[in-house]
Amino acid sequence: MNIRHLELLNLSLPNTTYPIHIGENIISDKSCVTKFIRGQQVLIVSNETVAKFYLKKIKINFNDLQCDEIILPDGEEFKNGESLNQIFYSLHNKKHHRDTCLIALGGGVIGDMTGFAASCYQRGVDFIQIPTTLLAAVDASVGGKTAINFADTKNLIGAFYQPQAVIIDLITLNTLPAREFNSGLAEIIKAALLADNTFFTWLNEKAEAIKNREFNVIAKMIAKSVEIKADIVMADEKEKNIRVLLNLGHTFAHGIEQVTQYKTYLHGEAVAIGLVMAAELSKMLSLLTQHEVNEIKSIIAAFNLPVSLPKAITSEALISSMIMDKKVLQNKIRFIILEKIGKAVINANITKTELLQVCDLVHEQ
Amino acid sequence: MNIRHLELLNLSLPNTTYPIHIGENIISDKSCVTKFIRGQQVLIVSNETVAKFYLKKIKINFNDLQCDEIILPDGEEFKNGESLNQIFYSLHNKKHHRDTCLIALGGGVIGDMTGFAASCYQRGVDFIQIPTTLLAAVDASVGGKTAINFADTKNLIGAFYQPQAVIIDLITLNTLPAREFNSGLAEIIKAALLADNTFFTWLNEKAEAIKNREFNVIAKMIAKSVEIKADIVMADEKEKNIRVLLNLGHTFAHGIEQVTQYKTYLHGEAVAIGLVMAAELSKMLSLLTQHEVNEIKSIIAAFNLPVSLPKAITSEALISSMIMDKKVLQNKIRFIILEKIGKAVINANITKTELLQVCDLVHEQ
Repeated sequence: MNIRHLELLNLSLPNTTYPIHIGENIISDKSCVTKFIRGQQVLIVSNETVAKFYLKKIKINFNDLQCDEIILPDGEEFKNGESLNQIFYSLHNKKHHRDTCLIALGGGVIGDMTGFAASCYQRGVDFIQIPTTLLAAVDASVGGKTAINFADTKNLIGAFYQPQAVIIDLITLNTLPAREFNSGLAEIIKAALLADNTFFTWLNEKAEAIKNREFNVIAKMIAKSVEIKADIVMADEKEKNIRVLLNLGHTFAHGIEQVTQYKTYLHGEAVAIGLVMAAELSKMLSLLTQHEVNEIKSIIAAFNLPVSLPKAITSEALISSMIMDKKVLQNKIRFIILEKIGKAVINANITKTELLQVCDLVHEQ
Repeated sequence: MNIRHLELLNLSLPNTTYPIHIGENIISDKSCVTKFIRGQQVLIVSNETVAKFYLKKIKINFNDLQCDEIILPDGEEFKNGESLNQIFYSLHNKKHHRDTCLIALGGGVIGDMTGFAASCYQRGVDFIQIPTTLLAAVDASVGGKTAINFADTKNLIGAFYQPQAVIIDLITLNTLPAREFNSGLAEIIKAALLADNTFFTWLNEKAEAIKNREFNVIAKMIAKSVEIKADIVMADEKEKNIRVLLNLGHTFAHGIEQVTQYKTYLHGEAVAIGLVMAAELSKMLSLLTQHEVNEIKSIIAAFNLPVSLPKAITSEALISSMIMDKKVLQNKIRFIILEKIGKAVINANITKTELLQVCDLVHEQ
C-alpha cells in the first residue's frame, strides 16, 4: 500500500492551531493518526455505510489504546439529540475520561455530531475529523462548526469547537457514489465563486479530469478548496462578519431542503440550485452579466448537479421557509450575493419581490 | 425602594471580560439589568419557587423588548436533558435569534442549565446570571462552568461558557430558607480554606453577624468569596491546572451526594462533610494540626452544617462511588488537600487505605 502525504495546511486561530492533512492511504499511517491523541482512550463514531469500508483500517492504529466504537445509522435524519445521547452513553458506559479523543469517521453528519459531542462531554474533550465524503472533506470537517438538528431546524443546537486535526484520505473518496461526489463539488464551486476567480477558471478547465476523479487533480482541488475555507475561518472563527460569506447559496439551499423535507436533494444538490439563484439575484442587481450566470450554470450542470427549481416547489413555499428563521426588518432580507465571480458580499436589502422574480427565473419551464 | 450598588468586580479572561455586580435591589435598576442586552429579545429561565418572588420584578425591565419566559420545576433532579430541551423549544417556538439573551433567574441548577442552553443555541447566544441563592451567588454563577446531569452523573455534559454579566441582588437572598443559606456558607468556607487564611479568621469573627444575615457583613462576605473564585478562574478558565483547587471537599461531596441519591443533603451540606474529610486527610498527611481540624469543624458546625458522616453511608459505598469516575492509577487517587488553612494543593497519591481511615474518623459514633 502506497502511503503519500500530499498537502499539509495549518489552521491558526486565537486559541488553537490544527493541521489539515491531505494524502493517500494516510488513515493507515499509524503515526499520522495517533500523534494527536493525548490519552489512552478513543471512541470512534461512524455510520453503518462508512464503517463497513474503513472501521477495521482505522481501528488497527489504536491497538495499544482503549478503543471503543459507536456505529450510528446513516442519514441526515439521525443528526439529532438521540444519536448525540447515544454517543454520550458510549463515553459514559466505557468510562471515558477528560483526555479521551473522539474520532469522527464519516461525512458531515458524523463530523458535526461527533464534534458537538466532544465539545460537551465533560465540558470538552479532543476530537479528530476523518471525513469520508468530498463534502465533509472540503466543508463540514474544516472550521469547527458542530451541531445537531433540532425541532426540524438544521444545526439549531451546536458549538464552535475545533478538532485536534483533520485527516483527509483521498482513498476514502473512492467508495463515494457519483451522486455524493458531485454533491461535494457544489461546495467547491461555491468556494471558487465566493473567493477565487482563478480557481473557478481552473475548475472549468479540469472539469473532465475531475469527473474522472484523476487523483492529482482531485488532490489539488480539495487542497485549494480547504485553503479558501481555512483562510476565511482564520479571519472570523465565530461568524461575526466575513465567515457568513461561506453561506453563499445556502439560504436558498436550506429553504429547498426544508420544503422537500430533506428527502429530494442531497445537501450539495440543494446548494447547486441555491448558487444559481444567488447568481440570478446578483444579475438582477446588475452585478453579474448574463454571460457570467451562464458560466456558473454551465459548470454546475457539467457536474450533473441541478440548476433549476422543480415546479413542485412553489415560490411561496420556498420563500416563507427561507424567511421563517431570518430577521425580516421592514421586509428586507439579508442574502449573500456575488459582486463578481470570485467575490461575494452581503446584501441586507433584498425584498420579497426580488426573491419571487428569482424563483420565476430558476423554475423549470 | 433603596437601590444600592455595593461592589463591582470584573472577571477578565482571554476572550471576554464581564462584570459581577453586587448590590441591594439592583434587579429593579433597569439600566443595570438591560445594559448587557444587545438585541430585542430575552428569555427568562427560572423555577417555580423563585419565579413566585422575582419574575414580575425582573420582567418590568424588559417591557420594551420581546420578553418570553420558561418556568421549570425546582430541583436538582430537573437539571437534565429534558429541561434543556424545553429551553431550546421555547427559544425556537418564539423565534429567538442569535442576538437574543437568556436570563438565568434562580440557583445553581437554573444557572448551569441556562448557561449551557445559551452556549448551544445557534452555537452560542448571550446570557446573564441572576443568582438567587447564596450558593449560586458565590459559586455556580461565577466562572462559566455550565452543565446538565446525564446518566446519573453530575455535570457530565456541559461547556465552559461565560455570561455577559452576573447580577447578585442581596435582596433575593432574603427569601432563602436557613438551610439553603447555610448550604451556601459551605462554599464560602471552602473558598477561605483554599485561598485566604485572613478571610477564614474574619468568617470566624463574624459568625454571629453572618447567621443574623447582617446586610453589610453578608455583602462583604459575598464580595470576598466571589473575588477568590474570580481570581482563580482568571488564572485558569478551563481547569487545566489551579482551578481544580476549587474542588476542595468536592470529591467527597459528590460521593456523598451520589450514595444518598441527592436526596439527603443539599450540595453545600455534602461539601461541608467533604471539607471535614479533606481536613482529616490533610492532618493524616501531617499537613494540618488537630487544632486546625477542630477550627474547621467548629466553624462548619457553627453554621449548622454537618461535620460527620452518618453510619448509613458505609465507607465502602462512599469510596467506590468516589473512585468510579476517577482515573485510578496503581491504586492512587488524586485529591485536593490543605497544606495549611488558606492554601490548597493537589495530591495524586492518596490510597484507598487512607480514604478508609478518613471515613472512620468522620463517621458518627
